[in-house]
Amino acid sequence: MARIVMKFGGTSMAGIERIRHVAGLVKREAEAGHQLAVVVSAMAGETDRLIQFCREASSLYDPREYDVVVASGEQVTSGLLAITLQGMGLNARSYMGWQLPILTSGHAAALIEGIDAAVLERVFAADGIAVIPGFQGVTEDGDVATLGRGGSDTSAVALAAAVRADRCDIYTDVDGVYTTDPRIVPRARKLPAVTYEEMLELASVGAKVLQTRSVGLAMREGIPIRVLTSFDDRPGTMVVGDEAIREFDMERQLITGIAYDKNEARITLTGVPDRPGSVASIFAPLAQGGINVDMIVQSVPRAGQRSDLTFTVPTASLAQSRDLLEKAREGVGFDEILTDTNVVKVSAVGVGMRSNAGIAAQMFQALADRGINILAITTSEIKVSVLIAEEYTELAVRVLHTAYGLDAEDAA
Amino acid sequence: MARIVMKFGGTSMAGIERIRHVAGLVKREAEAGHQLAVVVSAMAGETDRLIQFCREASSLYDPREYDVVVASGEQVTSGLLAITLQGMGLNARSYMGWQLPILTSGHAAALIEGIDAAVLERVFAADGIAVIPGFQGVTEDGDVATLGRGGSDTSAVALAAAVRADRCDIYTDVDGVYTTDPRIVPRARKLPAVTYEEMLELASVGAKVLQTRSVGLAMREGIPIRVLTSFDDRPGTMVVGDEAIREFDMERQLITGIAYDKNEARITLTGVPDRPGSVASIFAPLAQGGINVDMIVQSVPRAGQRSDLTFTVPTASLAQSRDLLEKAREGVGFDEILTDTNVVKVSAVGVGMRSNAGIAAQMFQALADRGINILAITTSEIKVSVLIAEEYTELAVRVLHTAYGLDAEDAA
Repeated sequence: MARIVMKFGGTSMAGIERIRHVAGLVKREAEAGHQLAVVVSAMAGETDRLIQFCREASSLYDPREYDVVVASGEQVTSGLLAITLQGMGLNARSYMGWQLPILTSGHAAALIEGIDAAVLERVFAADGIAVIPGFQGVTEDGDVATLGRGGSDTSAVALAAAVRADRCDIYTDVDGVYTTDPRIVPRARKLPAVTYEEMLELASVGAKVLQTRSVGLAMREGIPIRVLTSFDDRPGTMVVGDEAIREFDMERQLITGIAYDKNEARITLTGVPDRPGSVASIFAPLAQGGINVDMIVQSVPRAGQRSDLTFTVPTASLAQSRDLLEKAREGVGFDEILTDTNVVKVSAVGVGMRSNAGIAAQMFQALADRGINILAITTSEIKVSVLIAEEYTELAVRVLHTAYGLDAEDAA
Repeated sequence: MARIVMKFGGTSMAGIERIRHVAGLVKREAEAGHQLAVVVSAMAGETDRLIQFCREASSLYDPREYDVVVASGEQVTSGLLAITLQGMGLNARSYMGWQLPILTSGHAAALIEGIDAAVLERVFAADGIAVIPGFQGVTEDGDVATLGRGGSDTSAVALAAAVRADRCDIYTDVDGVYTTDPRIVPRARKLPAVTYEEMLELASVGAKVLQTRSVGLAMREGIPIRVLTSFDDRPGTMVVGDEAIREFDMERQLITGIAYDKNEARITLTGVPDRPGSVASIFAPLAQGGINVDMIVQSVPRAGQRSDLTFTVPTASLAQSRDLLEKAREGVGFDEILTDTNVVKVSAVGVGMRSNAGIAAQMFQALADRGINILAITTSEIKVSVLIAEEYTELAVRVLHTAYGLDAEDAA
């Protein structure tokens, strides 16, 4: 017997037929003797519909009232899943965020501050199944709160931590985490397991399987996550700590996967004066504007000369970044702002990198062999990323997938 | 300055444009210096959509979970109205049934047991506007509950009673209470005022403007109701006690209105034995089945002979009634069960009837003059009803409307 939190996304909950299918999956786990809490998203499209209502009601909508409106989507699906489970003879019922309670701070993109496990422990003790709306909680003042988009993954992991669950199973519309995007590389393999850190790097560079916040929380709380799909019965991917990874994947490669992210834009400032504080006075206003600067390359100037500064920002922040930089131009004294959105960041990710030199060199060589010019580089302990022209995306991903030995033996 | 509860129905809340219009009406009352609590229904059609989901999820849905699902419709509109009011610069916010709380007994068609007025008093003291989802409350156990269809009218009146409001304004899609159905009688007049009892009789015989429960509650609590439409600025109809009625309508007629109800079916049992207990043993199983028997006529038998018994039940209960009677047939010993759904109940309603004999006689004469046969009769202190063949509905309503002097001077 294990204690499991199961979480189903909006595609799995889109309509009564799918909810019935989900109930079947829950029933199977219940019949295996497991203690279950089930976290559900709103029906696919419903949250967008509700957000649209709020926007139309007033462009400056109150986050408190926004939460009242938007939290209703998960309220509906949790009630419907409870009804469906009861119809199958299971002892299920729903508990809203304010009923447990799931305490949060703030509104609209609230953080979970704590979950009272007492109600759930009583449910488990009575062989019951708790169905809980994801994405929502309640503030200290007793107001409904929501966690921000994708927050249901975080709800599930936080609940798993609160009841010390053995596992958090996240059912989504992909069947696991792949070595890279199978639309680009047909020989991409589904990974039996990745570490939390790998998952964070893969997520932040484009493999959007789990919400980043939920992975960070699972890592801190040591909750194993299983990513799988509700649409078929294939095994998913385990997301676990470094120490457990070999349990699930004996044959690990040094590199776990190749990711890419087209949502980066390159900004180059020309003629930046070479004096102390220049670079700081460029990045300070961007930081104040809440803009995440990622890759940074500065050409090394000759003493007393001007240099060029290149960095990337999310494409969605490009216009705002340009405005902020334009205002700073006179104070800093650079010449021009050049921008380029036709770039892509390609990354090789793997915890094996820690103990192995040469991973980055192998990457640069493989790209150079194909004549792909590298515009910027960043590295972390478990990741090497390069910025290249967008037109090379598929080629670069394929080349690196092969170079690091990730191709499946048999093509799919 | 008055304290007013405003209530808006589903048609008034159907979409952001209409919600904005409703917000304008609220703003006007706020600018007149009134203290306001606003009760809202779900968007038109939304409650049906949610109920349909529950039915599809399981034919035997749990009322507790049904309430969780169905209450969400009003949650959405109350949040959206609060956002819209704030966008117009008003100090508004929403309070769910569980936040006030509005305490109820049971589920799915719960009764309101009590409302804590403390939160609302604080809102009024701070010049705020409270927006409250109609139709919902919370049980003693902290579960979401709903009041049954049309329950938002009851929510509004109960809130008005809890805060001792001067008036409860119910905005609906008709602009008031008419002397009869204007589709049948173009010369029907909108009444400036009706008494609670008249409203109850008019509602129960077909003029479905207000939920019956809400009128009964307003009568007990002495809350004046104003029925009006949100779609134009015409004055509505006041629903008040007998003692206040002349304030609003100096020129009252003896008869207030003519109503009709096609949802009655006639049952005739032939050859009922003339012995003590026969009739009781016929009606007992119907009462146990929860069936409301309305008009009853028994032919007077010669001593020791058998007689016929005729009565009406709601058309929706006809099949069930027939089953129950079939089972009782042998015990009671009657011959046949005859049924007829092509009948209509036409009623003349008015508190003036109490002090005036001859109202019923006038009715029978007017119908006889047109050759309309009366199948059954019932009377109450303020109502005379006849059962006639359905094909005479329009003719009978028109004839009685004229006979009691209700026609408007100028045709609409």
